[in-house]
Amino acid sequence: MTRTISREIINRVGEKVKLAGWIQVKRDHGKMVFCDLWDRGGMVQIVGKENLSSLKPQDVVEVVGIVKNRPAKDINDKIPTGKVEVEVEEITVLSKAHDLPFDMGSEDLNVDLPNLLDWRGLTLRHPKVRAIFKVQETIISAFREILRQDGFTEIQVPTIVPSITEGGAEVFNVKYFGRDAFLGQSPQLYKQIMTGVFERVFTLAHAYRAEPSVTTRHLTEYLGLDAEMAFIDSFEEIMEQAERVVRYIFDKLDKENSPELKMFEATTPRLAEKIPCLKMRQAQQIIFERTGRDNRREPDLEPEDEKEICRYSLEKYGSELIFITHYPTKKRPFYTYPDPRDPEYTCSFDLLGRGLEWVTGGQRINDYNQLLDHVKKWGNKPEDFDLYLQTFKFGMPPEGGFCLGVERITMQVLGLNNIREAALFPRDMERIDQRLSVLRKNNDKRN
Amino acid sequence: MTRTISREIINRVGEKVKLAGWIQVKRDHGKMVFCDLWDRGGMVQIVGKENLSSLKPQDVVEVVGIVKNRPAKDINDKIPTGKVEVEVEEITVLSKAHDLPFDMGSEDLNVDLPNLLDWRGLTLRHPKVRAIFKVQETIISAFREILRQDGFTEIQVPTIVPSITEGGAEVFNVKYFGRDAFLGQSPQLYKQIMTGVFERVFTLAHAYRAEPSVTTRHLTEYLGLDAEMAFIDSFEEIMEQAERVVRYIFDKLDKENSPELKMFEATTPRLAEKIPCLKMRQAQQIIFERTGRDNRREPDLEPEDEKEICRYSLEKYGSELIFITHYPTKKRPFYTYPDPRDPEYTCSFDLLGRGLEWVTGGQRINDYNQLLDHVKKWGNKPEDFDLYLQTFKFGMPPEGGFCLGVERITMQVLGLNNIREAALFPRDMERIDQRLSVLRKNNDKRN
Repeated sequence: MTRTISREIINRVGEKVKLAGWIQVKRDHGKMVFCDLWDRGGMVQIVGKENLSSLKPQDVVEVVGIVKNRPAKDINDKIPTGKVEVEVEEITVLSKAHDLPFDMGSEDLNVDLPNLLDWRGLTLRHPKVRAIFKVQETIISAFREILRQDGFTEIQVPTIVPSITEGGAEVFNVKYFGRDAFLGQSPQLYKQIMTGVFERVFTLAHAYRAEPSVTTRHLTEYLGLDAEMAFIDSFEEIMEQAERVVRYIFDKLDKENSPELKMFEATTPRLAEKIPCLKMRQAQQIIFERTGRDNRREPDLEPEDEKEICRYSLEKYGSELIFITHYPTKKRPFYTYPDPRDPEYTCSFDLLGRGLEWVTGGQRINDYNQLLDHVKKWGNKPEDFDLYLQTFKFGMPPEGGFCLGVERITMQVLGLNNIREAALFPRDMERIDQRLSVLRKNNDKRN
Repeated sequence: MTRTISREIINRVGEKVKLAGWIQVKRDHGKMVFCDLWDRGGMVQIVGKENLSSLKPQDVVEVVGIVKNRPAKDINDKIPTGKVEVEVEEITVLSKAHDLPFDMGSEDLNVDLPNLLDWRGLTLRHPKVRAIFKVQETIISAFREILRQDGFTEIQVPTIVPSITEGGAEVFNVKYFGRDAFLGQSPQLYKQIMTGVFERVFTLAHAYRAEPSVTTRHLTEYLGLDAEMAFIDSFEEIMEQAERVVRYIFDKLDKENSPELKMFEATTPRLAEKIPCLKMRQAQQIIFERTGRDNRREPDLEPEDEKEICRYSLEKYGSELIFITHYPTKKRPFYTYPDPRDPEYTCSFDLLGRGLEWVTGGQRINDYNQLLDHVKKWGNKPEDFDLYLQTFKFGMPPEGGFCLGVERITMQVLGLNNIREAALFPRDMERIDQRLSVLRKNNDKRN
């Protein structure tokens, strides 16, 4: 007998079916036992008597039974199979679960962050946790779809790199056949090289930051959705492309993930006809006028400023997202294109939303001599960027691009409190799957 | 005036258009100068007089001109725009290229492997090199498409890992906040954990092997297309899914990349109605009978054996791909499922083609106690696999999966001589972009 996936049973009332999945919840009413069975098609209620009484949550079972309509009063509107249930005739336990360390049956999984991660193989099975990664899957595939439509080629770039690109000491070292190599802080240099090959490229890249701090917004290994495009007529074209991408992602989330959004009482950001745009100095002036906080000479927006300007954008333009442009040249990486009209500021942007950065991007220097000059001025050795610089000797058009943090967007769309909830297996300075303190103890025991 | 992408000009004869791109080849006939201009839509011929005479290969230009039909004798059947050309009226050089170190205009790029990689930003622009990565893009997107159709969820797993999964010393160490961590040799344990969450999952994963050897078939950082599926009724179901995937990839390559395949005089593998299948011991017996080479007690197939059994498959079954199953339990990783009928051999397979492995896979142990036992027997510490083992305590159905090496398949489909040609920026024990000897010299100079 072939297995049926749960959502298919709606149209098979009266028929005998075979289902297989995990027992999510059991409700034992003495004479009658009800279980929620989960499979990749969703949740379905199975009904039995003593044949279900020994089941426990997370047991893996195969059941054969008859699909029946539920009595009107028992219809569950929350799930697509809520009008039917399966009356179990035969049951086989494929894998017996140990006792759970906490209740997995409640609508919200009430465990703290350390337990959420210490029991990750289990907690990821909670419907609301699982939903996060269905949303994330859509974000990633929507990104690929719209860029492919727009003539971008998908590329794959390496993560082991010979030199540090984004400056700073926050880099992981890799022992590489007797030499020090590094884990890439971004695919930036490679995607730029690749605009010389395909004009327009995108990639999903692992990026690494060894920042020795614990925040709710940073991971040591994260995923970047990177795009880069050549033959731009203006800096604004990059922002237009970025806007097209985020709009497409939100549309696709609305279409395909409304059940998941609903679970989090979340909506995709409200947007104006066109996402508003301010220069950083303008934003600081507005913040000063609104709050009296005078950061008008600061080289960047503080977290508090980012929150304030998002509030302003929503009030003034009805847009939960706003572009901030023209960050100071000295605060941006060496490859950032200085505004020819005012070279102290760059043709760069951040897209802020709900108080945080969602996207960062800008135009890049495409002239070899200017780039070489910047490499040196930023305190780098040209020989460390040989392959990259070489590319600019052989003809590079005006180009630029942007990057969306996958976990950041997932977190921001769903309103999660901590970015760790938006990574399947988050890495930070205290954890690689297990807490580092535990791993260290295991290690010591062995030596 | 809006830019036109080259392939769109076919239907605009007589009109004025603006094109932008790289000068790929220049043919100077004195009074008339012809150039091949490349943009993301392909190649197009532009014609001019002294206005083109100073151009050099890889110069980036913007031209305005009239689309004209070519004289019948000058039609180029090899490119989609071959019936037309653009008579240039205005030209702007956006970026001037330095002199090239070698000719980029010939049909084959005649440089040796070290130069191919030393000048990677340039050599990737050669049409035949570029073609490799269009083929690769299709392989990856076809893999995703067919698995999504089949109910698989795309997941993203980390590359920094706390312990070594596949055994052996060929692992890269990462200094991680005072502790040793590693670069994952495969996403194996994570994809298995995730079958407990989504039943069926796939991922494109970076994988790392610090093997201190230089072969034409191995990279230190490579891309794996990994899939894993739960609720299998039999080991054979995994092979059927793998076969479905490779067939879909080949179909898509035939549909979308015939120009690229043609450049390499390559075809996708010829397949029988169903890919044939032999147990490893049967294969060794056949090899013995065909060649007199007696490897019948060896625990694995030698490279020569793999070539011979592929020859056999083509002769006997008309199939360039063949499954080899039931490798010895001792030679496979701890998580491999021993055949209940003969536990010295595993429910594992390799898919071989054209003399090399294309896919590897198998059923995994899903019983907690058996898995714990294997972890220990294979000389591992259970505490190093805490998160993984934990998952099997909470109900895991029978499951298995497989992995395709992206670069390996690209190389094998196109008949490339070296796997390094199938990676944009290949890493091996002698190179991270630049040769390590050069990087080391730079490093010494500085200290």
